[in-house]
Amino acid sequence: MDIGALLTSAAINTGLSVLLFSLYSILRKQPSNTIVYFGRRLASLNNRNSRNHFSFERFVPSPSWIVKAWETTENEILAIGGLDAVVFQRILVFSIRVFSIAAVTCMFLVLPVNYYGQEMKHKHIHAESLNVFTIANVKEGSRWLWAHCLALYIISCSACVLLYFEYKSITKMRLAHITTSPPNPSHFTILVRSIPYSVGESYSNSVKKFFTNYYASSYLSHQIVYRCGLVQKLMVDAEKICMRIKAAPKGQSSLKPCCLCGGSTSFKVLTDEPESVKDSFSYSNLNLATRDNERSAAFVIFKTRYAAVVATQMLQSPNPMSWVTELAPEPHDVLWSNLCIPFRQLWLRKIATLLASIVFMVLFLAPVTFVQGLTQLEKLSQTFPFLRGFLKQDLINHVLTGYLPSVILILFLYTVPPTMMLFSSVEGPVSHSGRKRSACLKILYFTIWNVFFVNHVSGGFLFAFNMLSSVGDIPVELAKAIPNQASFFVTYVLTSGWASLSCEVMQPFSLLCNFLKKHLLRNHEDSSDGLVSFPYHTEVPRVLLFGLIGFTYSVMAPLILPFLLIYFLLAYLVYRNQIVNVYITKYEGGGQLWPIVHNTTIFSLVLTQMISLGVFGIKKSPVASGFTIPLIICTLLFNEYCRQRFFPIFKKNVAQVLLEMDRRDEQSGRMDEIHQQLHSAYCQLPLTSHEFCESVHKLCQDNIRGREGTKSGKEPSEVSEPCAVCNFGKERSIGE
Amino acid sequence: MDIGALLTSAAINTGLSVLLFSLYSILRKQPSNTIVYFGRRLASLNNRNSRNHFSFERFVPSPSWIVKAWETTENEILAIGGLDAVVFQRILVFSIRVFSIAAVTCMFLVLPVNYYGQEMKHKHIHAESLNVFTIANVKEGSRWLWAHCLALYIISCSACVLLYFEYKSITKMRLAHITTSPPNPSHFTILVRSIPYSVGESYSNSVKKFFTNYYASSYLSHQIVYRCGLVQKLMVDAEKICMRIKAAPKGQSSLKPCCLCGGSTSFKVLTDEPESVKDSFSYSNLNLATRDNERSAAFVIFKTRYAAVVATQMLQSPNPMSWVTELAPEPHDVLWSNLCIPFRQLWLRKIATLLASIVFMVLFLAPVTFVQGLTQLEKLSQTFPFLRGFLKQDLINHVLTGYLPSVILILFLYTVPPTMMLFSSVEGPVSHSGRKRSACLKILYFTIWNVFFVNHVSGGFLFAFNMLSSVGDIPVELAKAIPNQASFFVTYVLTSGWASLSCEVMQPFSLLCNFLKKHLLRNHEDSSDGLVSFPYHTEVPRVLLFGLIGFTYSVMAPLILPFLLIYFLLAYLVYRNQIVNVYITKYEGGGQLWPIVHNTTIFSLVLTQMISLGVFGIKKSPVASGFTIPLIICTLLFNEYCRQRFFPIFKKNVAQVLLEMDRRDEQSGRMDEIHQQLHSAYCQLPLTSHEFCESVHKLCQDNIRGREGTKSGKEPSEVSEPCAVCNFGKERSIGE
Repeated sequence: MDIGALLTSAAINTGLSVLLFSLYSILRKQPSNTIVYFGRRLASLNNRNSRNHFSFERFVPSPSWIVKAWETTENEILAIGGLDAVVFQRILVFSIRVFSIAAVTCMFLVLPVNYYGQEMKHKHIHAESLNVFTIANVKEGSRWLWAHCLALYIISCSACVLLYFEYKSITKMRLAHITTSPPNPSHFTILVRSIPYSVGESYSNSVKKFFTNYYASSYLSHQIVYRCGLVQKLMVDAEKICMRIKAAPKGQSSLKPCCLCGGSTSFKVLTDEPESVKDSFSYSNLNLATRDNERSAAFVIFKTRYAAVVATQMLQSPNPMSWVTELAPEPHDVLWSNLCIPFRQLWLRKIATLLASIVFMVLFLAPVTFVQGLTQLEKLSQTFPFLRGFLKQDLINHVLTGYLPSVILILFLYTVPPTMMLFSSVEGPVSHSGRKRSACLKILYFTIWNVFFVNHVSGGFLFAFNMLSSVGDIPVELAKAIPNQASFFVTYVLTSGWASLSCEVMQPFSLLCNFLKKHLLRNHEDSSDGLVSFPYHTEVPRVLLFGLIGFTYSVMAPLILPFLLIYFLLAYLVYRNQIVNVYITKYEGGGQLWPIVHNTTIFSLVLTQMISLGVFGIKKSPVASGFTIPLIICTLLFNEYCRQRFFPIFKKNVAQVLLEMDRRDEQSGRMDEIHQQLHSAYCQLPLTSHEFCESVHKLCQDNIRGREGTKSGKEPSEVSEPCAVCNFGKERSIGE
Repeated sequence: MDIGALLTSAAINTGLSVLLFSLYSILRKQPSNTIVYFGRRLASLNNRNSRNHFSFERFVPSPSWIVKAWETTENEILAIGGLDAVVFQRILVFSIRVFSIAAVTCMFLVLPVNYYGQEMKHKHIHAESLNVFTIANVKEGSRWLWAHCLALYIISCSACVLLYFEYKSITKMRLAHITTSPPNPSHFTILVRSIPYSVGESYSNSVKKFFTNYYASSYLSHQIVYRCGLVQKLMVDAEKICMRIKAAPKGQSSLKPCCLCGGSTSFKVLTDEPESVKDSFSYSNLNLATRDNERSAAFVIFKTRYAAVVATQMLQSPNPMSWVTELAPEPHDVLWSNLCIPFRQLWLRKIATLLASIVFMVLFLAPVTFVQGLTQLEKLSQTFPFLRGFLKQDLINHVLTGYLPSVILILFLYTVPPTMMLFSSVEGPVSHSGRKRSACLKILYFTIWNVFFVNHVSGGFLFAFNMLSSVGDIPVELAKAIPNQASFFVTYVLTSGWASLSCEVMQPFSLLCNFLKKHLLRNHEDSSDGLVSFPYHTEVPRVLLFGLIGFTYSVMAPLILPFLLIYFLLAYLVYRNQIVNVYITKYEGGGQLWPIVHNTTIFSLVLTQMISLGVFGIKKSPVASGFTIPLIICTLLFNEYCRQRFFPIFKKNVAQVLLEMDRRDEQSGRMDEIHQQLHSAYCQLPLTSHEFCESVHKLCQDNIRGREGTKSGKEPSEVSEPCAVCNFGKERSIGE
């Protein structure tokens, strides 16, 4: 690939990006697309000013969204998207900073050394091969390799310094977030799993007995987890209907008052369903809360945050596989279906999904190696001779080498996130955020292995699978392959990187769905069903992959850096815009992503250093090799220090902080109020309000009275004892 | 090596063992050796009946010690040697059981298949090569390899079943041991390290402030760690003198009463020292307890066991590298010198010792590969042609191949334990048992790598060091090497194994020291200075190495099994004898060795299975290979299950158990008494009694009054406030 092909590719992609960004700036002004591009705002504001008036301004592209995204402060991002959104922003800021330093260093120090590395007659710059700008052009035993070594030192040191300060500030942010946040039910609640079965006693009773025995002073109440199944699904549907009814604009066409939530709203689509829904409600709930439906898991609520954390840190029972405790996720974050999985299955499930992921990774090699063939035109025309004439055309040549391989790769890669998400679900995490984090890690490993390693190792020899046999040789193989694979990764940044950002901002899938809904189904209601939270599990691996490419190529082939820097700058703007406008925040991840980011960056750095060591070895420069080894050791020591200094904060809650929060609440007298709220926080019945539990209890009481022939005239709200059927009131009576 | 050579070796070793055991049975009856062979009994009984009367019986070897060792019950071992001694016994019992099954299976199933594996004319049994009895004699593609596969299944399954029940019973024993043991100060105490420095405040005050603030209800007192140095050494010497005086037989020649412990005993050697000792005492203690000598570590004592464990499980401060807590070791187990190491150095020290251990392991290759050369006589005579005539003699040949290599290897191996112990000390563990466990792991890795792997991999090609380059090929290399190396390991079991037991029971080093002391120095006093605790760090790796050899060779070369079984049976008797008679128990390890044993055994099993897989592959038996793969997977799953089911008990204390112990003590009213004992449990000043602290306090008070001119007439024992200089009374005033 020569500079001409590179410029063609860059031009195509720049044009495409400008076009798509302009299109976006027009589309976002169309009122019909509000739900696609301003979903979060709609969900939070709840007022829809349908500005259907026509104006010429609506069809002129404008950069106002860029300005707005730029002007958003970090505090606003924190308020809107939570700590995870800030962490994601910090990844981009870190990348911009470190690659700015790398770009300046490498363009002025490394690039000239590479270009004049060999005594040769340089062609016209347009026809110059990309290889001339890589370290491959430096002759063996050159004295100028110290420049590369120095650049490596500058990049590594600046990356470590920046990483340290980022880790420090994110740790501080995490602590501040915990301290300043309003009382969070997840701080008071633990999840107990694998409650031992005892004959003739319900799990609920076992939990009560155990915690009143051993945690008498701090135990408040508990909430048993019930069987999830068809009944549960029915409930979810009912909730959706109810939510839709509540959210619908008032005063349109009220037919009759809603029997569930009391609102007087319309039933357009579902006019004949409310009775059946009500029936299923009362029926299902009465069935739901029986002994047979109890599962061996429960949420146990404590009086103080400290007591809850203590209960999670201790080994409760002489059998470590029963009474297993962990901190509960936030109520909205709970993945109820996984709570029913017996705890004893979990370790088997984890091993099984690990194996499945590895198999998936290996099977994925086939399309990737095929794609790789397309970048080497000579090999392709050797394999398929009939294509030779076709391939000789200049434009075809440029498009094929510069564009097509990446597109095919990207299309294949689109199947990965759903598969990994499925694996992570099967694994059995108890929270949405945990599942996303697990999927994030899987996708990260997958991406690094399949996009980075396999492209490099198999790039040299078409359809070769033998890179798995000798793990120790990988650095040397990479050192040989990296300078030659520079062209592929430059185009990968241009296509996959830039295009993915345009795609992200355009939201083509939502746009299409919205269009179909409005113009084919004639449904003009904007529902908030389709709103999703930020897909960290796909975006974090993507950004980290570009970081890895950036680090490994910075010293070897510095021409990649400007393109990468543009990618990160665009990403910074685009993702800010998306966080502010599009994605909703259902739960708080607590910045747990940063350790993943930190470790991956350290991995990238060490890999870069080891590849450099290999290249310096190939180029026969003992001095440069000798200076690289202490750098690797120092980087690893730095990582170990950070692991000791910051990582525990992301694993455990700090006793001191929790004790002071508890004290503050006790002194201000808010504790009773908080306890009241806690009782209904983890209600499995999907309407999340205490009222709903109350209404279910009423239905239950009606049912009992119906069966007993209304023996007692007591009103359901007057009962002081907990209900024997639906458990309602139990927590309060214990708590008091 | 042929059967003749093997029998020669066996005969030499059997003769030697019988001779040494007989010699032992005579030596142990000599009164002058009582301290060597009955050290523990002497230390525990404190009565020395010097039966110096001559009798003929004293010089007749007798097997009575074997009978006594056999008759000792497990409960006696537990009472005498603690849980660790029982665990060590269980390793041997497990080995005897599993290798009995293996021996029966392999001798009747595998050995005939090996012997008749090829159609050949068998020589006279005496001249038959050992190779005929190994799997190397089975021809390629033989249908009889199912026998080996079946034997592998039987051995693996029985090993797993036995391991499961051992782990279960040891877990139960550990829990019972914690529950039934008398109140242990280490259950109530935590070790706090890395106390943050604050200007103008002593560490002692910081600790008091922190724990009265956050653990007000459960904090009892604390004990700051002081600088260890010359002063400390002086104190240790003083203690030794004091102990010796106390222990000496009364009424020999009393010169004047001891000024330290009040006993009226003699000062034979040290007659002119007591005054100086007293001076150094008062001087050093007054200096010791000043602010400048405080180190940033402290023992904090809690009112209940549960509170102490809670404090260790929590992350105390937003900076995870300050206020680091862990459960305190037992008072006698504390390694005071390491407590002074700043916590921030620890991670660096750990990495440094890890690297140092690895370097030591690699450098050790040279002598081992040289030793290996001696077992291959042809190669030796090729390398040194002038030896050829000498080597042709039959006896020399047998001795050289059957005996010498192992002896040289053993001599080299004697340098390993002290080196690894040194590394473990530098690493910075806070307890003797922790240091021993760390050294045990290091020696175990070392032994497995240098004795097992290097002997196999380098056995094939003399002085070859390239086994490090391709880690993936090790199983295949082993599969090739194992059948050929059978002769070396059979002799290794005979020499190293049997001889080490004779050596263990004879205690040649102590015997020599004792002899020199009594006959050259004319010192006939038996002092308990030289008594040591059981060297688990050398004996556990040794036994586990023989286990590894047994597993890997069981199917490949079953002839090794009878010799191994004799080794384990002898070891069972010898170590029982040693635990009961020789070694003292200074502290309780709590059975923490078993997880190491379990993991090593699983490693041995999986390695055996992988080597078998390799051998079946070489022998072209797809059926046997196919059946081996599920066995490997099942073994790994079994290990994972055990890790989940039992391992946490060895890492953490169980809340339920501790709470119940606390309750029992509270109900019986013993808590106050326990609290009284706790105050002086972790006194750094080496006389471990409260009285000593009191006497130091008196000295301190005298000193103050001396300076102040006796302003107040108060007696030191009447003071109600803690002493400002030596801290005495502080704990009590806080506790009350």
